[in-house]
Amino acid sequence: MPKLVFVRHGLSEWNKLDLFTGWTDVDLAPEGVQEAIEGGRKIKEAGIEFDIAFTSVLTRAIRTCNFILEESNQLWVPQVKTWRLNERHYGALQGLNKQATREKYGEEQVLIWRRSYDVLPPLSDSAIDRRYQLLDPNDIPKGENLKVTLERALPFWQDEIAPALLAQKTVLVAAHGNSLRALAKHIEGISDADIMALEIPTGLPLVYELADDLSVMKKYYL
Amino acid sequence: MPKLVFVRHGLSEWNKLDLFTGWTDVDLAPEGVQEAIEGGRKIKEAGIEFDIAFTSVLTRAIRTCNFILEESNQLWVPQVKTWRLNERHYGALQGLNKQATREKYGEEQVLIWRRSYDVLPPLSDSAIDRRYQLLDPNDIPKGENLKVTLERALPFWQDEIAPALLAQKTVLVAAHGNSLRALAKHIEGISDADIMALEIPTGLPLVYELADDLSVMKKYYL
Repeated sequence: MPKLVFVRHGLSEWNKLDLFTGWTDVDLAPEGVQEAIEGGRKIKEAGIEFDIAFTSVLTRAIRTCNFILEESNQLWVPQVKTWRLNERHYGALQGLNKQATREKYGEEQVLIWRRSYDVLPPLSDSAIDRRYQLLDPNDIPKGENLKVTLERALPFWQDEIAPALLAQKTVLVAAHGNSLRALAKHIEGISDADIMALEIPTGLPLVYELADDLSVMKKYYL
Repeated sequence: MPKLVFVRHGLSEWNKLDLFTGWTDVDLAPEGVQEAIEGGRKIKEAGIEFDIAFTSVLTRAIRTCNFILEESNQLWVPQVKTWRLNERHYGALQGLNKQATREKYGEEQVLIWRRSYDVLPPLSDSAIDRRYQLLDPNDIPKGENLKVTLERALPFWQDEIAPALLAQKTVLVAAHGNSLRALAKHIEGISDADIMALEIPTGLPLVYELADDLSVMKKYYL
């Protein structure tokens, strides 16, 4: 039976400072490291054996992926890193303090940016970073809502993750609150209206047991 | 200019116990972790930017690879793990204490096993491990000399590492004393007689600057 496990990375240095992070490559905080290690222990206790692991190109997700694999004695499992699993790009809000942003733009506007499915944040310049140098410049976002996050994650789901599951593999995806939420929307068929209410807890492995057509048979947290 | 960097993993738990290790998947000792972190700092200071990283399917090499990338702020670099970069398989000697083995078989015999290019150690059963389950059982070694180690590493060099270098990439190979020695023999054209004298220090990045035909222009340690 194909099995898909999501792990959302835990506390980062910017979470602690209450800053909008998005594509900014901040590291896990020590508490976030601990969450990932705990997640790996749960995977080990549950006896889950991965065939392949997917993660983003952001350090906090990759380290989470590595801790999960290492703690469950399967660091040798093949790992693929892709920008398509990155966190939602928060545009010009990246690096801003959330409280300061509320004071500047108003509580309601910030809530709209955070909780609406298809409203874009204020845009920024494109990230100039060596890890994105092989992308079509038009593909590099300047700010995303969840809808756009799903649209750029979906090709990777279709080309890499779904085929692995269709081949009966057990798959780990270690990524971010919004990229996992976007995939969950697609997998579970959650509506645009309902998806923003879905919160995946950090560090807690979320297991999907899937039918051969990848419909969800069972969903549970470890 | 194509650039190739070798890093040999540092002290493992079994190095400390003076046991033959080979394919046994023992972890780095804390000192080995420190060596890898130091190696990563040297990479960062030298400003080396990798395009791709290759490592074995053994935890001590993968963790070394990850520390190197993490400390030099490039954990996002694609990483490929392969059994073809594993340490030399030490056959029935794996798990034995080196001193006890000398007492049992004699100093001279152990020296022959350790230092001859083409004498095989006593053979063991094949490793039964999930990470090797997709290999042709005939490819899973029961004991190797350096000659055989090179023969099974070479296809990976030809199919993955050399093409990346020919495409002008900067390549990290984080692996083991004997798999790196085998590749060094191939790259530098070292004779069967001379190769066993080559010792690559642990944790110290070894840089090859290569010509377009992959002949060695410069070789130095960081």
